[in-house]
Amino acid sequence: MYRSHNCGELRETHQNSEVTLSGWVQTVRDKGFVIWADLRDRYGITQLIFDEERSSEEIMDIARSLGREFVVQIKGTVLDRSSKNPNIPTGNVEVLVSEIKILNKSITPPFTIEDQTDGGEDIRMKYRYLDIRRNPVKNNLIFRHKVAMEVRKYLSDQDFIEVETPYLIKSTPEGARDFVVPSRMNQGQFYALPQSPQTFKQLLMVGGMDKYFQIVKCFRDEDLRADRQPEFTQIDCEMAFVEQEDILNVFEGLTRHLLQEIKGITLEKFPRMTYDDAMRKYGNDKPDIRFGMEFGELNAVAQHKDFGIFNDAELVVGIAVPGAAAYTRKEIDALVNWVRRPQVGAKGMVYAKYNEDGSFKSSVDKFFDQEDLAKWAIATGAKPGDLICVLSGDANKTRTQLSALRMELAERLGLRNKEEFAPLWVIDFPLLELDEETGRFHAMHHPFTSPKPGQMALLDTDPGAVKANAYDLVLNGNEIGGGSIRIHDKQMQSTMFKHLGFTPEEAKAQFGFLMDAFQYGAPPHGGLAFGLDRLVAILGGQETIRDFIAFPKNNSGRDVMIDAPAAIDPEQLKELNLKLAIKS
Amino acid sequence: MYRSHNCGELRETHQNSEVTLSGWVQTVRDKGFVIWADLRDRYGITQLIFDEERSSEEIMDIARSLGREFVVQIKGTVLDRSSKNPNIPTGNVEVLVSEIKILNKSITPPFTIEDQTDGGEDIRMKYRYLDIRRNPVKNNLIFRHKVAMEVRKYLSDQDFIEVETPYLIKSTPEGARDFVVPSRMNQGQFYALPQSPQTFKQLLMVGGMDKYFQIVKCFRDEDLRADRQPEFTQIDCEMAFVEQEDILNVFEGLTRHLLQEIKGITLEKFPRMTYDDAMRKYGNDKPDIRFGMEFGELNAVAQHKDFGIFNDAELVVGIAVPGAAAYTRKEIDALVNWVRRPQVGAKGMVYAKYNEDGSFKSSVDKFFDQEDLAKWAIATGAKPGDLICVLSGDANKTRTQLSALRMELAERLGLRNKEEFAPLWVIDFPLLELDEETGRFHAMHHPFTSPKPGQMALLDTDPGAVKANAYDLVLNGNEIGGGSIRIHDKQMQSTMFKHLGFTPEEAKAQFGFLMDAFQYGAPPHGGLAFGLDRLVAILGGQETIRDFIAFPKNNSGRDVMIDAPAAIDPEQLKELNLKLAIKS
Repeated sequence: MYRSHNCGELRETHQNSEVTLSGWVQTVRDKGFVIWADLRDRYGITQLIFDEERSSEEIMDIARSLGREFVVQIKGTVLDRSSKNPNIPTGNVEVLVSEIKILNKSITPPFTIEDQTDGGEDIRMKYRYLDIRRNPVKNNLIFRHKVAMEVRKYLSDQDFIEVETPYLIKSTPEGARDFVVPSRMNQGQFYALPQSPQTFKQLLMVGGMDKYFQIVKCFRDEDLRADRQPEFTQIDCEMAFVEQEDILNVFEGLTRHLLQEIKGITLEKFPRMTYDDAMRKYGNDKPDIRFGMEFGELNAVAQHKDFGIFNDAELVVGIAVPGAAAYTRKEIDALVNWVRRPQVGAKGMVYAKYNEDGSFKSSVDKFFDQEDLAKWAIATGAKPGDLICVLSGDANKTRTQLSALRMELAERLGLRNKEEFAPLWVIDFPLLELDEETGRFHAMHHPFTSPKPGQMALLDTDPGAVKANAYDLVLNGNEIGGGSIRIHDKQMQSTMFKHLGFTPEEAKAQFGFLMDAFQYGAPPHGGLAFGLDRLVAILGGQETIRDFIAFPKNNSGRDVMIDAPAAIDPEQLKELNLKLAIKS
Repeated sequence: MYRSHNCGELRETHQNSEVTLSGWVQTVRDKGFVIWADLRDRYGITQLIFDEERSSEEIMDIARSLGREFVVQIKGTVLDRSSKNPNIPTGNVEVLVSEIKILNKSITPPFTIEDQTDGGEDIRMKYRYLDIRRNPVKNNLIFRHKVAMEVRKYLSDQDFIEVETPYLIKSTPEGARDFVVPSRMNQGQFYALPQSPQTFKQLLMVGGMDKYFQIVKCFRDEDLRADRQPEFTQIDCEMAFVEQEDILNVFEGLTRHLLQEIKGITLEKFPRMTYDDAMRKYGNDKPDIRFGMEFGELNAVAQHKDFGIFNDAELVVGIAVPGAAAYTRKEIDALVNWVRRPQVGAKGMVYAKYNEDGSFKSSVDKFFDQEDLAKWAIATGAKPGDLICVLSGDANKTRTQLSALRMELAERLGLRNKEEFAPLWVIDFPLLELDEETGRFHAMHHPFTSPKPGQMALLDTDPGAVKANAYDLVLNGNEIGGGSIRIHDKQMQSTMFKHLGFTPEEAKAQFGFLMDAFQYGAPPHGGLAFGLDRLVAILGGQETIRDFIAFPKNNSGRDVMIDAPAAIDPEQLKELNLKLAIKS
């Protein structure tokens, strides 16, 4: 038996008992006649003591030889500690070591195994197994486990069945790019890894499985933006015989349950906002509503003077930045430069200070008088002491720019409190979105999303105006997940494919099995998927999902620890009937 | 709202209440003036009634138009039923329909959606979404969910953390064949899908994660034997600071918990048997111990006469078949033919009837007298009324043949009771096994298994004799899972790779990250993996895992429902820098 207790377990009540502990040497403090060592495992740290009076020569020698991260097993007696450490649960005791065995040595680790480490991101990823020994990473993984368990408990208690869907499926080149898997037994053919179990969960609904969920890996071969992973985890759900309202209620319940169980936070009913309102009020389909700064549209009160920039703009829109009237000229110039950065792309920014004394001072005083500016204050909800920031131009672009500014200012003003949770349902998404490059419409969610009742006809006349039974759950400005009511009628699905530019042959080759299935009594159904990585990160009060994944990949899709992907044996390629087009 | 109740819910207590139900039409019985229909969903069946006196003309017309598997929503009143059906929980009531809406029609399904269907395996797989509507399949999937939930609950309660390990890893061409995934972002390089998370779970141990589990998909590109799947699910576990005994106790506890919670069966401590004993007593490393028929070795009592076949044999071995002394000559001849089948491969079979009167009658009475045969009876444990079946020849082959005969006879005699559960730990497996084709030794489990203490030296002199800290859990003659104590010392791991025929360069290229990790304080660790598909099937009292997988693949690795694998767009291949070696 390697241990009778773990390193986080001993208390004063264990005094004088004989214990066996195993773990890693965190630190050694050698005072010559007495040596202390901190022994660490997953559960905590226990102080070990060796001294010349009570420990044998042999044990003292071993103690002196200990290095950081050595793995040792000790036997000893739990003693009251003279200088207590109130910062750790075991801080009142120490263990006088009577036997010690080095189970494994360690060479010097490439970074310190401390909460604040000296290791940079790259080195920590290469030695991820050492990084995981650090409390912040270890605790994130344990936190993730707890969230996943609560999800399963909640859904299972509500009669949802977790069904495993296959990983080796078929490539459907629409949507994002698939990872493909060459088949050896069916040469020249390929499986694809699922981007999501979408069609399978719909088939489970056709199969009567009624309430399905799965915590499941999904795969997308995308050029990785920051904080995306080629493999990621979804909480994937589907329900039959439901309307949108039923689905929102179940998953609002799940989210509330998680916040309650994991964070101890009780939330009331989640607010809802249409996509159109979200875009108008926040310039964003995933608004962070922990703070205000709602958009105030100023066309009516800013296009009546000789200011050509506003007069030529499709949209003039502003926000009131709380307490920022006191910004210096230099601070404001910095803001103007910030919105002009290519990542944001505004041409400039107009501002108006709403002074504490009720007067206004703007960058456009030449054109607008106090009365005009007072109307801007009303439109943006500015109060004395606020700074009104105004952008103008093409409506969509300007909203996006102002949204970026709003988020940046909230960050600077400390309004994005990580311990506050502000969920929001965004509903009534457009069914389609225009691809500006090709001029073609794509499904905004996916081709299985149903339009709102009665809107099929609009598809022919004004496709961009068709709204869908589609919804996202937004938490603190992050899209946690989304879903929709699906099409369950073969004819409607086939019309939808046509509108998305599929020939009947393409639709049949790729999704024939689904349309076949719809002929045999497909029930009305819908569902949603939450991104587990993101959900866990936000619940954990952090921004990057990588910190909540045991073995993440870097931005080039590489696992730098195991050095994958890698070249394979030419024999393997040959068995797959493949060769490299251009030799690498 | 599509339903106020489900179709398995209504009882006499609901009488006279107004309900809304949705589901599939199972059957319609049209008596002209009255029509009954069974409405089915995941939860059960409720009888609907329509009659000319109480239902409108319009509703009667719709009722008459209903076909099998139509999806309908009805409103109605719960009534006491005149002819009760005691076979279903809702059998005391029926619902008089006041409103009905056809939600979706169905064409005639290709097989009947009944417990006993008229559909063969192939058609049921092609229309798996219809097969899943059938109770046996649906119940298997729900059963699987329950088992998986209990596994998670049990392990989580014991402080195990479920950690997701990556699916896109690196190919290691030893073991079985990997599925590979070409990387677009790293051209000419490939990921591999994991055959198991073996190295990652060991790295988690190095990372201090101490008690890990995961219910996880694994992948093997093997030529599929019956009842194998290219993707399968493991309950994968690993623990640090443990000895074999600790691991056996935890997973014996898990198995006992499952049998208790799922089957209501309380089991005592599981018996254990060494690999050598299992081979000697049952000719099999996964013996079914629900019944006896242990092997009796007869060399000492059968090689002293002039019977050359026995005298030339390395091993003479028999079993006592209970109550089979009464077999006719014809029945015994059939047995002899059975062991001679190429799948079994015995040259012949000697038998001795131990008659109820205590006398013996054998096929070798010319050579052996009553006294000899009485010794055979003692060696095989035969009692009056039994039949002793004896095979001889090369020891290993003969044991395998007799094991096959033992299982066949048990099946015929009804000794393999599906409601009885007889677990068995088989321990002390050999570390290596000889590949008879190449004459080389392979790791019997995998290259990370540690030899028994003090046996490293034997590797040079008698590799086949080295025993490992490796164990399997056997349940009713099936291997449920297995595992081992791992090597955690870099030097020993490197020696092991050498003995398995890796050059130092190969070992470094493929497992360098693991050996590197062992330098930084790797703790002693070990673990095991259960096959979830098999475990669920056996707990469910069935033999084929396919029946417990929602969307299984066939023996050619094809998903016949979605028709995968399939050719992909040439553009996709080009992006991956691949071409087909031989055009298909």
